Amino acid sequence: MTSHRNTRPAEKEDGADAAADLSHDAQLSGAFLSTLFVPTAGVWHGYIEWERQPHLAELAHKILAAHTWPPPPEYQLRPLPETNPILEGERWKQWHAALGPALADIPAESWAIVKQEKAEDMLAVLDFPYNGEPRRDKLMLSHITPNQHHFVRNHGGIPTLVDEAAYRLEGGGLVARPGSISLAELKDETLFQQVEMTVTLQCSGTRRIEQIDYAPGEGDEMINAPWAEGAIGTAVYRGVKLTKLLKHFGGVIEPGQHIEATGADTYFKKNNVSNYKVSVGLRLAKLNEAIVVWEMNGVPLPRIHGAPLRLIVPGVIGARSCKWLLRLTVLADPSMGPVQQQEYLYYNSQVGKHNASFSKGFSIQDMPVSSAMLSPAHMAVITHDGTIDCAGWAYTGGADGWIERVEVSSDGGFTWWEATDLSPKHYHAKRLWRISLPVIAEGWLELVVRAWDSRINTQPTYVRSAWNWGLHVTSSAHRVKIYSADRSNPATAARLKQLAEHGDSLERITRPIEFLAESANDYAEAIKQKGPREPLN
Amino acid sequence: MTSHRNTRPAEKEDGADAAADLSHDAQLSGAFLSTLFVPTAGVWHGYIEWERQPHLAELAHKILAAHTWPPPPEYQLRPLPETNPILEGERWKQWHAALGPALADIPAESWAIVKQEKAEDMLAVLDFPYNGEPRRDKLMLSHITPNQHHFVRNHGGIPTLVDEAAYRLEGGGLVARPGSISLAELKDETLFQQVEMTVTLQCSGTRRIEQIDYAPGEGDEMINAPWAEGAIGTAVYRGVKLTKLLKHFGGVIEPGQHIEATGADTYFKKNNVSNYKVSVGLRLAKLNEAIVVWEMNGVPLPRIHGAPLRLIVPGVIGARSCKWLLRLTVLADPSMGPVQQQEYLYYNSQVGKHNASFSKGFSIQDMPVSSAMLSPAHMAVITHDGTIDCAGWAYTGGADGWIERVEVSSDGGFTWWEATDLSPKHYHAKRLWRISLPVIAEGWLELVVRAWDSRINTQPTYVRSAWNWGLHVTSSAHRVKIYSADRSNPATAARLKQLAEHGDSLERITRPIEFLAESANDYAEAIKQKGPREPLN
Repeated sequence: MTSHRNTRPAEKEDGADAAADLSHDAQLSGAFLSTLFVPTAGVWHGYIEWERQPHLAELAHKILAAHTWPPPPEYQLRPLPETNPILEGERWKQWHAALGPALADIPAESWAIVKQEKAEDMLAVLDFPYNGEPRRDKLMLSHITPNQHHFVRNHGGIPTLVDEAAYRLEGGGLVARPGSISLAELKDETLFQQVEMTVTLQCSGTRRIEQIDYAPGEGDEMINAPWAEGAIGTAVYRGVKLTKLLKHFGGVIEPGQHIEATGADTYFKKNNVSNYKVSVGLRLAKLNEAIVVWEMNGVPLPRIHGAPLRLIVPGVIGARSCKWLLRLTVLADPSMGPVQQQEYLYYNSQVGKHNASFSKGFSIQDMPVSSAMLSPAHMAVITHDGTIDCAGWAYTGGADGWIERVEVSSDGGFTWWEATDLSPKHYHAKRLWRISLPVIAEGWLELVVRAWDSRINTQPTYVRSAWNWGLHVTSSAHRVKIYSADRSNPATAARLKQLAEHGDSLERITRPIEFLAESANDYAEAIKQKGPREPLN
Repeated sequence: MTSHRNTRPAEKEDGADAAADLSHDAQLSGAFLSTLFVPTAGVWHGYIEWERQPHLAELAHKILAAHTWPPPPEYQLRPLPETNPILEGERWKQWHAALGPALADIPAESWAIVKQEKAEDMLAVLDFPYNGEPRRDKLMLSHITPNQHHFVRNHGGIPTLVDEAAYRLEGGGLVARPGSISLAELKDETLFQQVEMTVTLQCSGTRRIEQIDYAPGEGDEMINAPWAEGAIGTAVYRGVKLTKLLKHFGGVIEPGQHIEATGADTYFKKNNVSNYKVSVGLRLAKLNEAIVVWEMNGVPLPRIHGAPLRLIVPGVIGARSCKWLLRLTVLADPSMGPVQQQEYLYYNSQVGKHNASFSKGFSIQDMPVSSAMLSPAHMAVITHDGTIDCAGWAYTGGADGWIERVEVSSDGGFTWWEATDLSPKHYHAKRLWRISLPVIAEGWLELVVRAWDSRINTQPTYVRSAWNWGLHVTSSAHRVKIYSADRSNPATAARLKQLAEHGDSLERITRPIEFLAESANDYAEAIKQKGPREPLN
């Protein structure tokens, strides 16, 4: 990992605080920084408690503000690179490096964990903080997504629990008996009933690439990971219900209405640092059956997914399922953490740079009905006998909904065929679908999938119908363009044969045909049958 | 009420049952029938227990099958009458008359109750069973719909409780202690905690008229009441939670998963009779906070709305909120009552008369996000100064959703303005919205409203996007065509003045202009400025 730290001093100083005169480079040495930012209590590696040490957060702000950072990549106005990782988190790495030894190694360590815990063929839309999704075929392999193929959307580096015995999950805020609990106590079945739940988590960025493709450069200037259809995964989690845990802390007291979860990862935003912090309403957490988990698909929660404990809130945007859980805090109002208050906002389509403000968007919580076609691939050339095998996923969030129907169209959305091969229903999980779709037209076609949930909500018709400045929640009917050639059509069969005889194939669709498409004799015959080109009179 | 009973004997006899030789008209006399169909136990008037007296149901079937009924009105292929009531329930009245004195007067009695309990200006889309909705302006008067303006969708006549002290609500099926409870016990606050809930009920037929207008004659041949935007209402109900009541009956036992509610009204379908009977899943009933109520907007439940007791299931189609409650039965599977099993099904748009079967549709329960523009009216001619006042409602069903945003467009749905004037949020109620919509274009425009719920679901774009054979759940963005004339435009102001001078007005939009639209001088001047009509060369 290379640091591109720019040590040019800030052009103006924010305050006269004595702690650090940041105009002197000498004070920014690693040795000095390592005395400032010390991992908390030896329980974790890579965790600094910012909220309860506001002087450190203030100092970090000054250090970060004293740097000049390279501008963020404006990839939206350029084609995405064909690399893996697609985007590199250079600025995030620089921010970590700027704060010295306590965090400087985190990007490299986090990448090592990616290599350990994730499949080799994952698509990294951002290398750091790691944002990765599985290939389409991997997502279709099974109803439950294997851990190594489950998408990851991290917001910072991965903190590591060093001393499991010393770890305690705190419960505080508006509860009757604030306190903490050890991992051993939490897993003690005489204290807490354990539950296993099949849960789909989805990033609100899923299918964002379509919003980018529809209107490149028109979205928010922030680094929006260009997710495709893979930012969704289903796993069986084991843990205890949040409601039981809150009872352990004496139960919620007035005016408690929201549950805030704080993680050990450090979140950087506009030269400020904080611990990752989000919230959901308590009513929603209860309806949606939120759980605190330590197991994912039968194995201990992977480090990249939040070990030792993660809050899982089914039905809502994945960002609320806080990893590396430090504490749960009952609040009267939603969390004011930047991820909660300033991000994952859903704006009206007339909101943009000229008028955007956080309060104009609403906080994305429950996820709407959506679907994706994972196969065939966009722009695929398909030779078939009248049907095309299509497959994908369909999902709806919320407490009380499930996917009731999946429909696929081969004519851009005029007629719809119902997919009857669906994976099992769960209250909180996506369904995989397959259909052998009758296709009678040839040439470039638009295949479309849309789902209906048990609430009879369906998906917006076009990307534009749900385009929004934050490029969140691309929930419109998924459209996949394919080239259809029906080999049961004699003319098509003849052309395929011709192509094969010339060592070519239809699949090489962008190559010109290397032989005459019609012989002079055939042309003359066809023209004769059609009658003369010019009108008779 | 006139009976059109046709006494022509049936062409063939179903069985050799001795109970009635229906080929003899004499046996169908009122005197004879009154000995057969006797109101049950003197507690009710107009209620016959069919389910527990299968021999009576069988007999009624034979009597009904022995008649030839006039064909159902095929109004979908003809314009709707401009009458109030719009449709008349003649066949339903005949069915009641055919069964003799116990039910013959029910249609007239029910209409008398309509007159008593409903506002004079209600729009009766069907007079019997009564289906009525308020005028648009009445629906906008208040966030809570006054009882006299609340829509009614009855499926039969109105039974009347005669002996309140003798009435007992039964609880049975898969509960530990089946039994019954009196009204006095139910209302005893030492036994049951009472709750007040603000609940919107909506008929799945709301806005059906748009599906009919889009494709007249293409829907199911059944009598589909041509509802407009008024089949939705909000009331404050008082009662006890269903879950508490089930606990009173010992709690649900395995494999209980559904709660069936049976009403005292008689439901006729295809020459069969039954008591109205529907069900919802217990999980849904609990999440959606179902209640058994006796009070509506601070007064005893009106007779037309189900006195003495009604089951209210918030968030779902109104049909599940069973009126004139007789019993609650916990079942392992959904109710097999015809309203549950054969009606209120949501079909895929490729399902029609050639392939429809009940199992192809899914049962409509939770309602999707939808909205309506109640003002201005479709085809209104509006003279304005650059803004048009628009107003309407927006609603979403389910346990955990609410209307988060309402957007209005004056350009057919290209740009969207957010309505910021919304009535209060409830978990289970619609919101009224108002906006002063900026309009710069003149002429015929399409105003559109769409809502987003807290789950980020929005409405399908066009009626066609959600057209279905049963013509249920018209949830697409609501489109209202209006004529826009901006009097701040000098040319428009001049035209308005001209019209006034001639005693005419723009509002009489279908009348030809009675003066020359442009004088010869003005024409010559304008043409001169535009240059010659023909190209120069």
